[in-house]
Amino acid sequence: MMGVMSPEAAATRARLLDAAFEEFAQHGVAGARVDRVAARAGLNKRLIYVHFGNKEQLFEAVTGEMVGVLADAVPFTPDDLPGYAGALFDHLLRHPRQLRLALWQQLERPGLAEAAAAASYRPKVDALAARGTPHHPADVLTLVLALTGAWLTAPSALRALAPQGEGEAAQASPERVAAHRAAVVAAVRALVDDERNGAG
Amino acid sequence: MMGVMSPEAAATRARLLDAAFEEFAQHGVAGARVDRVAARAGLNKRLIYVHFGNKEQLFEAVTGEMVGVLADAVPFTPDDLPGYAGALFDHLLRHPRQLRLALWQQLERPGLAEAAAAASYRPKVDALAARGTPHHPADVLTLVLALTGAWLTAPSALRALAPQGEGEAAQASPERVAAHRAAVVAAVRALVDDERNGAG
Repeated sequence: MMGVMSPEAAATRARLLDAAFEEFAQHGVAGARVDRVAARAGLNKRLIYVHFGNKEQLFEAVTGEMVGVLADAVPFTPDDLPGYAGALFDHLLRHPRQLRLALWQQLERPGLAEAAAAASYRPKVDALAARGTPHHPADVLTLVLALTGAWLTAPSALRALAPQGEGEAAQASPERVAAHRAAVVAAVRALVDDERNGAG
Repeated sequence: MMGVMSPEAAATRARLLDAAFEEFAQHGVAGARVDRVAARAGLNKRLIYVHFGNKEQLFEAVTGEMVGVLADAVPFTPDDLPGYAGALFDHLLRHPRQLRLALWQQLERPGLAEAAAAASYRPKVDALAARGTPHHPADVLTLVLALTGAWLTAPSALRALAPQGEGEAAQASPERVAAHRAAVVAAVRALVDDERNGAG
């Protein structure tokens, strides 16, 4: 189907994917409703079945796209992990729904897009392995990614304990974001220095 | 109702809470089904409505309990954050469903049990503040908790890139767990040392 898709069909497919991304990021698989996806896209629900099949298959399509987007969101710089963490933090801050979708996927369909995800992680782990680290490079990458997403996925009760500055109530102020970003980058730098010194 | 509950009623309530904990940890709120909770508890579904009300209220009861359990799971030791992280890691490893339930709650009902959660975080943040840290103590706690849960919530595709040892396919081997635990504790120690030295 992909090869012979008309421009109209491709546009319809893209609109449905965008709408499905919003719906799944907000509600997850179990909570998502295909009629809300259709309404959001301004298209007939029948088109979802034509282009993707059922809700499961729609989620698979959205997840498959998202893995690629997240993998290439910022360049991986094994020689500058603090810089990588800062840049990825900035990306996730601008695209919180990508992070939400990834969390839903891990909880609801952990095995989905496994090959695509592995293909995104493996070169990063290999690049770290080439530098040599006292801990396994997959552990190092796991910890760097966890530090990067820590604040963005932290419980609101914990976030509320830091000074919020003068931003909107629902959104962190620029000062708050900058202070947290500095803490993330410093933590990754400390982790890297520790790995470099062979401590553990 | 709590004050005048018969021993039988209390036992019924506890059985329902246990069954609901399993169901919500596995499926989240949207995916959970009260008839599966009743079946798991070996009790009539009507008793769920008698004791808790609807599915929402049942989730609220389960979440409220869980916040307290997680808060007191291991003693908070502000002078030994690496030790705290290691002990909490051990607890979460033994009780992966507590972590899953917390993740569902943050995604599906972020504002739930806010007061209880705040009451669990505040003394920890205050204890860190008393020691003085270059970054805000809420940031420090956020990063320590993220490092602690990193591996336990990492995508399976990333986990698979570390040597799995001779454990069951679905479960990490003791060697793998020990290697990751050492990486977590080292990362928290590096973060703490960095905070102590006032770098950033």
